[in-house]
Amino acid sequence: MTRDVRMQGFASRHDVADVVRLLDERLAPLASEIIPVTECAGRVLAAEVAAQADVPGFDRAAMDGYALRGEETFGATALAPLSFRVIGEARPGRSSRGEVRSGEAVRIMTGAPLPRGADAVLMAERAAEQGGSVLALEAVAPGKNVGRKGDDIRAGAVLLQAGRLLRPQDAGLLASAGTAAVPVVRRPAVSIVITGDELLPPGERPRDACIVDSNSLMIEALARRDGGLPATAPIVPDKREALARALAGATGDVILVSGASSVGAEDHAPDLVAELGVLEVHGVAMRPAGPSGVGFFGKRPVFLLPGNPVSCLCAYEFFAGPAVRRLGGRPLHWPHRRAVLPVGRKIVSAVGRVDYVRVRIAGGKVEPIGISGASLLSSTTCADGVVIVPKESEGYGAGESVEMLLYDG
Amino acid sequence: MTRDVRMQGFASRHDVADVVRLLDERLAPLASEIIPVTECAGRVLAAEVAAQADVPGFDRAAMDGYALRGEETFGATALAPLSFRVIGEARPGRSSRGEVRSGEAVRIMTGAPLPRGADAVLMAERAAEQGGSVLALEAVAPGKNVGRKGDDIRAGAVLLQAGRLLRPQDAGLLASAGTAAVPVVRRPAVSIVITGDELLPPGERPRDACIVDSNSLMIEALARRDGGLPATAPIVPDKREALARALAGATGDVILVSGASSVGAEDHAPDLVAELGVLEVHGVAMRPAGPSGVGFFGKRPVFLLPGNPVSCLCAYEFFAGPAVRRLGGRPLHWPHRRAVLPVGRKIVSAVGRVDYVRVRIAGGKVEPIGISGASLLSSTTCADGVVIVPKESEGYGAGESVEMLLYDG
Repeated sequence: MTRDVRMQGFASRHDVADVVRLLDERLAPLASEIIPVTECAGRVLAAEVAAQADVPGFDRAAMDGYALRGEETFGATALAPLSFRVIGEARPGRSSRGEVRSGEAVRIMTGAPLPRGADAVLMAERAAEQGGSVLALEAVAPGKNVGRKGDDIRAGAVLLQAGRLLRPQDAGLLASAGTAAVPVVRRPAVSIVITGDELLPPGERPRDACIVDSNSLMIEALARRDGGLPATAPIVPDKREALARALAGATGDVILVSGASSVGAEDHAPDLVAELGVLEVHGVAMRPAGPSGVGFFGKRPVFLLPGNPVSCLCAYEFFAGPAVRRLGGRPLHWPHRRAVLPVGRKIVSAVGRVDYVRVRIAGGKVEPIGISGASLLSSTTCADGVVIVPKESEGYGAGESVEMLLYDG
Repeated sequence: MTRDVRMQGFASRHDVADVVRLLDERLAPLASEIIPVTECAGRVLAAEVAAQADVPGFDRAAMDGYALRGEETFGATALAPLSFRVIGEARPGRSSRGEVRSGEAVRIMTGAPLPRGADAVLMAERAAEQGGSVLALEAVAPGKNVGRKGDDIRAGAVLLQAGRLLRPQDAGLLASAGTAAVPVVRRPAVSIVITGDELLPPGERPRDACIVDSNSLMIEALARRDGGLPATAPIVPDKREALARALAGATGDVILVSGASSVGAEDHAPDLVAELGVLEVHGVAMRPAGPSGVGFFGKRPVFLLPGNPVSCLCAYEFFAGPAVRRLGGRPLHWPHRRAVLPVGRKIVSAVGRVDYVRVRIAGGKVEPIGISGASLLSSTTCADGVVIVPKESEGYGAGESVEMLLYDG
């Protein structure tokens, strides 16, 4: 694995599937941390959570209306209403006092505790109150419009399982059951190292022989999409010692190196990863992003992403993205929305490598984007998505159905 | 519209479609703001952006190898290689000096400017360097492995259109073309007002006649999903003056009021919205979330969301969510992933109202969740998603195909 490939090319290339399998086998979710329930939406539950209390914790009105004995309303209709004496009012948040006796009713608001003696709530819309009395315009069965203690959740019941990506309503559920703190999988810190003497930081104008780095912004956004916490170091020059220092200083749970990944004289990254850790993969049978690599510093995965922006995007999606998601307890698979559509214009690939083909949808059909250079980032901004052509395929002819991964959610 | 409906019920209910149409007509994206390119991923472009410079700004090597005159390699093969004198090295970020003449080559790294005289790059893998010379093992046509000035982007060309939700690679593209600042639609500030005497803040344990507010966490997360910036005020008691103060202090572009939206004696929200602005809608023909309302404070929409958590979720999705997205320049439609599946167990609805039916997928089929109370938030955490049954439908029988909106992305 540590043969020096600089200026000699890759002797052989790894299969995409083997690299993905390696990551699947080696990586596991990070340890958990405890966070306030107020911050848990969108995080991944690290352990099951049980309810601290019954919800609701008391019998309560599920409607605005009148609490009474349901049985006593039997026979009431709009034409022959039955009258009840209104003896008070029950409001949310106040424990009920007194008792509803025969012929009596208590005006009650949704969420208020049901007064003792009452067992049903007559809806306000089916009642007419006047001068201390209320007319029931219909019958309500005992138990009607009442939420019973523990109806939604029983104390001690498991609310949500470990591994759950918490939905907005999950956060609400946890809070309602008295949860103060939630164990979640730690978000992976993603150290981004950008190397290249020709690079200017984003925000500058390209000048002379220099170009502006686009990969940091792109992979920061991708890492955030995947639940990671990216941090990008200042651009590293193409010097062995400088890159060695940057790698040693990369404290993230995942390390992404953009540039210096290939076989040029200044491509020190593969060599340094092998020196500081283990270089498991260098050179993958895919296009673009062939000169990608994967290594480990201890348990921490290191990804060598080609400096060419499209290759960088491609290598991130195939290898780094699944790793960030796995460490954060999320599913390994690509998060893109998928569509199955007929091919409008032939998609060509070569047997023996995986192709990441940028495509657009035209007239309901999928067609490849004309331009295809690895460095042409505009091919990924004018495309609607990609088709992944597997190793054993030569591509897809017009009319065939193909699955496409959409760039936009 | 401002008839006092308290304790009398809704005389008539608005159609869901009419409410959505009202929002569609009344709401428009907020004004733009200028942000650094480093923060633009995930934001919505407010105006088209044109390239500040050519990308690349110079002819450059697209591969590691040797820059030479392509024509001079014609005839070269591995068995009959041609030799070139290596006169120097071209590195990324350094303007090239000197010139490649006949019979000469310059060792070159990907991204380095092509030296004068050269017109092609022989890949390192197809070359063998030894003692000041390099053997070309194959022919390369002029122009091969060279990226021309302006190949990816021409200065002045429009990179991306107004309204674009910026992808990770879009941020990279903008940076690479020399963009420093990006005009984006301002993110809507979402003021959340939670009212109810029975409510304790999230993180507390339920006690006595009190329950813990779950709606704030849920709608904060939903507003963030939709591109909003939520801010929740301290819980407001069921007092007219307190709610009036809270509404007057709600400075957001969108105001969400949870609770006090119905027809109970303490439901002051509809009345106050009518007093402080215009109450356009109160009472909608839907289940749950019938007691929802929509008003305006000037141009700012105000949504009355029922306090029952499932109703609150439902009213947010139907009305508030589209508004937050529209103000932020995003698409109005629901952002959920969709699936079309056969119905496994009958989905029942009533003609004349829209139903928000929580469903699960079992054996590849859609079936309604057994529990259905508006207050049972657990029905939305054990469900896989929802089926929206339109007003004119009685539901779906087993075996029919139905579209389902998935809760998980």
